[in-house]
Amino acid sequence: MTDPWQDPALPAGVRAADLLARMTTEEKVAQLYSVWPGSNETPGRDMAPLQHALSEDIDLTRLLPHGLGQLTRPFGTAPVDPAEGAARLASLQERIRSANRFRLPALAHEECLTGFTAWRATVFPTPLAWGASFDPALVKEMAAAIGASMRSVGVHQGLAPVLDVVRDPRWGRTEESIGEDPYLVATVGTAYVQGLESAGVVATLKHFAGYSASRGARNHAPASLGPRELADVILPPFEMAVREGGARSVMASYNDLDGLPAHAHRRLLTELLREEWQFTGTVVADYFGVSFLETAHGLTDSPAGAAGLALAAGVDVELPAVRCYGAGPLNEEFVDRAALRVLTQKCELGLLDPDWAPPADSASADLDPPHMRTLARQLAEESVVLLANGGTLPLASGVRRIAVLGPLADDPAAMLGCYTFPRHVLLDHPEVEMGVDVPTLLEALRAELPDVEFTDDPVAADVCVVAVGDRSGLFGRGTSGEGCDAADLELPEGQGELVDKTLASGTPVVLVVLSGRPYALGRWADRCAAVVQAFFAGQEGGPAVAGVLSGRVNPSGRLPVSVPRERAGQPWTYLAPPLGQRGEASNLDPTPLFPFGHGLSYTTYDWQTPSVDDTAFPTDGETTLRLTVRNTGERAGTEVVQLYLHDPVGKVARPVARLVGYARVPLEAGASAEVHFTVPADLAAYTGPDGDRIVEPGELELRLGASSAEGEVRYAVPVTLTGPERVVGRERRMRCEVRVK
Amino acid sequence: MTDPWQDPALPAGVRAADLLARMTTEEKVAQLYSVWPGSNETPGRDMAPLQHALSEDIDLTRLLPHGLGQLTRPFGTAPVDPAEGAARLASLQERIRSANRFRLPALAHEECLTGFTAWRATVFPTPLAWGASFDPALVKEMAAAIGASMRSVGVHQGLAPVLDVVRDPRWGRTEESIGEDPYLVATVGTAYVQGLESAGVVATLKHFAGYSASRGARNHAPASLGPRELADVILPPFEMAVREGGARSVMASYNDLDGLPAHAHRRLLTELLREEWQFTGTVVADYFGVSFLETAHGLTDSPAGAAGLALAAGVDVELPAVRCYGAGPLNEEFVDRAALRVLTQKCELGLLDPDWAPPADSASADLDPPHMRTLARQLAEESVVLLANGGTLPLASGVRRIAVLGPLADDPAAMLGCYTFPRHVLLDHPEVEMGVDVPTLLEALRAELPDVEFTDDPVAADVCVVAVGDRSGLFGRGTSGEGCDAADLELPEGQGELVDKTLASGTPVVLVVLSGRPYALGRWADRCAAVVQAFFAGQEGGPAVAGVLSGRVNPSGRLPVSVPRERAGQPWTYLAPPLGQRGEASNLDPTPLFPFGHGLSYTTYDWQTPSVDDTAFPTDGETTLRLTVRNTGERAGTEVVQLYLHDPVGKVARPVARLVGYARVPLEAGASAEVHFTVPADLAAYTGPDGDRIVEPGELELRLGASSAEGEVRYAVPVTLTGPERVVGRERRMRCEVRVK
Repeated sequence: MTDPWQDPALPAGVRAADLLARMTTEEKVAQLYSVWPGSNETPGRDMAPLQHALSEDIDLTRLLPHGLGQLTRPFGTAPVDPAEGAARLASLQERIRSANRFRLPALAHEECLTGFTAWRATVFPTPLAWGASFDPALVKEMAAAIGASMRSVGVHQGLAPVLDVVRDPRWGRTEESIGEDPYLVATVGTAYVQGLESAGVVATLKHFAGYSASRGARNHAPASLGPRELADVILPPFEMAVREGGARSVMASYNDLDGLPAHAHRRLLTELLREEWQFTGTVVADYFGVSFLETAHGLTDSPAGAAGLALAAGVDVELPAVRCYGAGPLNEEFVDRAALRVLTQKCELGLLDPDWAPPADSASADLDPPHMRTLARQLAEESVVLLANGGTLPLASGVRRIAVLGPLADDPAAMLGCYTFPRHVLLDHPEVEMGVDVPTLLEALRAELPDVEFTDDPVAADVCVVAVGDRSGLFGRGTSGEGCDAADLELPEGQGELVDKTLASGTPVVLVVLSGRPYALGRWADRCAAVVQAFFAGQEGGPAVAGVLSGRVNPSGRLPVSVPRERAGQPWTYLAPPLGQRGEASNLDPTPLFPFGHGLSYTTYDWQTPSVDDTAFPTDGETTLRLTVRNTGERAGTEVVQLYLHDPVGKVARPVARLVGYARVPLEAGASAEVHFTVPADLAAYTGPDGDRIVEPGELELRLGASSAEGEVRYAVPVTLTGPERVVGRERRMRCEVRVK
Repeated sequence: MTDPWQDPALPAGVRAADLLARMTTEEKVAQLYSVWPGSNETPGRDMAPLQHALSEDIDLTRLLPHGLGQLTRPFGTAPVDPAEGAARLASLQERIRSANRFRLPALAHEECLTGFTAWRATVFPTPLAWGASFDPALVKEMAAAIGASMRSVGVHQGLAPVLDVVRDPRWGRTEESIGEDPYLVATVGTAYVQGLESAGVVATLKHFAGYSASRGARNHAPASLGPRELADVILPPFEMAVREGGARSVMASYNDLDGLPAHAHRRLLTELLREEWQFTGTVVADYFGVSFLETAHGLTDSPAGAAGLALAAGVDVELPAVRCYGAGPLNEEFVDRAALRVLTQKCELGLLDPDWAPPADSASADLDPPHMRTLARQLAEESVVLLANGGTLPLASGVRRIAVLGPLADDPAAMLGCYTFPRHVLLDHPEVEMGVDVPTLLEALRAELPDVEFTDDPVAADVCVVAVGDRSGLFGRGTSGEGCDAADLELPEGQGELVDKTLASGTPVVLVVLSGRPYALGRWADRCAAVVQAFFAGQEGGPAVAGVLSGRVNPSGRLPVSVPRERAGQPWTYLAPPLGQRGEASNLDPTPLFPFGHGLSYTTYDWQTPSVDDTAFPTDGETTLRLTVRNTGERAGTEVVQLYLHDPVGKVARPVARLVGYARVPLEAGASAEVHFTVPADLAAYTGPDGDRIVEPGELELRLGASSAEGEVRYAVPVTLTGPERVVGRERRMRCEVRVK
């Protein structure tokens, strides 16, 4: 005889409620915290002091009889063979199950931003590279593969994607973000969520919310944000990923928003996320984020006080620890609310089923199979952005000798973001084998160009390739990554001098920037023969960049962040209203050197005059733009058609233009394709003076452009919204429909 | 027989209402705009292009029959002898009066931030120097003198003070601001208002609000501000200046706040300012700020539309022009509301009296009399901050030869802020005589040290004085000033290299920074024999700085802004919560080289253990701290005792400490004084999660310190607030009572 909670035929919510009713308070609370097994096993583990002080030694024997909600990073703390890791996880789950009277396993979560963050797992490009690809479909495929590999070894939840919209590229976590435009972040990020969730792995949207807007780009600093900027810039990716992506978890962010820490922000975590967006999953803390309410935000003077604030606001699960939620009496109503959510999710994941068992096939786990490496290569290739080219690229067949210079030319670190296993867990321990093969740029060039002689002497070469940029790291170990914020956008560690010196040789210079953020290139761009930008393109990044240089790959990446001219003057993004950026009121000129959306190709495209179905349509209607694009060059390529909205008159100041649609258009030489953008009036919505999201009647301009720059608008199509002003809510359409045929 | 509006025995509001009722719509509207006579007479006049495009040629013959509300800067557009200027203004007023049927003169306004911005008027120190003095009483005296001189030539309103709290010192208008702490800005700014208003001149609080928080410190860029930061940091100086200062005018700011331009911000201009703060004066536009609603903010597509938005929000007077308010039909109710305020103010100023006449004594106007120069000297001397001193200062009597170097050593521009007549009106036209005598630092040193030989060769000298910093200017003409924003805080124009070079000589270097913002001094401070900071100290600035170097003046200035170690990483101010500034989460260390409140002296002070009347007091109560300070050195000096509030636990994240009181304590050698701070619990108020300003019960620490740095806290006095949490409103006490005896 089974109890209702054990009956797979009943709905998850019914089963979870039944189980909850059988639980003691201690058992409920135990579902709301996590244990981090082996968190001290990492070689040279050395967390930030504040976080380290909060790590804990847990007496599992005392703890486990009440059950356990979460297991924190069972794989991601030390190099362990995947099959062995799966076996260890299974054994730990058995220990957990056998200690509690309901035989419930824990929900196991892992990092997975650039792939499953475990040893010997494929390292994919970092999110800024996803943004550069403008290819949500491929990102979805990648995430599905990542999810399948995690699921195959018993992991249930992945702490990705990062949906923070870049507001100040000095921030070290810019590399983990998809870009500076909310529409790009929303569409690409939602694709990732759909992929991961399609594999049965819970996607976790982070960091909710405002983290990227920290003052001075200092990690953890307050976000001076008003509600309108929050609603129109920061939140849309989260909303799309909840509504369209079906994300089942959201992580609160460390920062405060206008003084109120996200972990204590009921308006965000409960009113907005659940009541308005109808989110039904779990809200988890960022690591030690509940403790920070006590130790850093000064909102309380005890762990139990922090737990009370977080739980009441809507943080269901404390990660990675027991410290606060395990500390003292909690409001029973809020405990029930959170525990019901956790148990419902566990039920959906099969963890309440009597026949639950760890995955059977994990003994043969291969986390870096050929099809994943192929995906990693494809995404890497699509993410490389050709910023400038005077004709030196692709390298001519006559090139005999190439000087490859720069600290990143022969360093795999140039390809690896902060949330890869080597950079995040192995940290700076080169004695530990990385677990995957990461060809350096030089190695890849040698493979790509077997007949070329490579040297490090610029004068003796036909062309110089100078590879500069970042080494990513954690907690100040790198020039990019979590805790590695930049004071300005000068190329770090004096690499600019190397570029100057190489240019002085007189040999044509191909500048290759391999970085986690945009750097100021104004000092060199005009003098370089070509400039290529890649963003931690992952284990296949070396071959991808080499392929672009050789011409095997026709570059199709587009900038997800503006590349500035000058090192200083941050923050700036292209989402700025006209006042203050015309150079009339300030001597500072924020105009970027290479604008958001910019990227060149080895072929040429002709955009024919577009047609528009309806030049006037109601504020609840839509129109369709049709544009024919032709590849007028001699080789295949992929054009990225971008659609921007310019709204000349509104009730509040709005950016001059913002992205509302885009299409990757692959075209054989001489081929053409018709691109249809069906634009709902809802995309013109913005948050008005009263806080409502409104669509106003009036004139708009739909700008088809090759980038966000006004000078690269190919066609500006005037349209008119008619009818009454509308207030739109969660039912609104959040994206263009795009067809390419 | 006189009408009621002409009867001086009746209240101003009654007279204004009576007059309003007699006016046509055109006559009412005419009271709401301004004409800028002679705005094209300035030598080399060349406004920012956007503003220039909005300047207008007015047909006075057509305009004046309806009357005229305001005259814009009748003196401040070209060098004109004060008496002649007064006569011209009187004649223009007669023309205005005789053209309208009520014989109403216009209300004449002028700039007066660093003194009456007219030719041959005393140039006082710039506001950042007022802040450095920590001496509101002296600032009040200065403002009273400025007001009297303006009034003596027929000017009614002064467009000062600037109450913007510095949020990012890269902003060019930092020099016009009093400092980075709202309490310092409030108390010093209110003193200025009291002084100006005591002379019968309308003080204008600007810029309301948020202007200093522009993104990237770019002038006119949007302010990404939430309501709590606005309420707790930006608004308090305005509130104090309205409530305690009796300011009769407020100027809207150019920026938008979270998307809503201040000129269209009803919540700010009407609900907060008038309904909550009970302000009854006029709200005026910043120059062309109404037009900007159309031309730059995109809130409307016509001048009439801009007028409608601004008038409805609560902008009563368009400055400096007729363009919008004169453009078309306006809502009659709003016109009446604004015109009543203008007419009431005119009535208060005597402009409705039948016997109104221009000032009788203006023929002998002296705008730079000895008593004003004395005030200018005294404030300049109090504003010089001795940042570091290894013993080289004051210059020993044995010093025979001094090398004086640096581009600012012999340039009067080093003493003059952007809103001085020479920098604001004469601009960069050295051929025009400045109108006042401004000794350079070198000239002042020669006068101060007649027995010393001066050279420009560091090697041949006993000591080097290197004067570096800013030349202030308008619209990009300088390195500081309106429109002269800095990309970072590197000493401008390569002056750092001169410092390096001079240090290499081996001769002791006294670094003198004469600037409009703090600059990063980390590269040199340790290697200099002494570092002195002054902020555009006005026409007496040269003698003031020279007096500090010679020892004639014992320095007593304190930093109103933090001086950073590094050039980059802005913005940062000391008003930051703990999270994100401990160096644990970010590799950036925002700790300043010299903290807010820092400043040295040539004598020493002993602070004895303070006593506190009540260590526990109710949330509507107060306590008194008593501290005895003794001058333990051998010469007279002035100590500045600073009181900071540290609140360990609150409902939102708050700065680690913030200034709540301060006292200048002048002490003869060996003398002591008792300083009493009566601290109302209201000073612990902050804006809570619901937007109310609350005083919570709980523990607090009252920190008596020599600066804002934790290391310079001399005594931390724990106190407890008891009783219930209180919501406080406009009745709250906004300041410490301070007694020195």
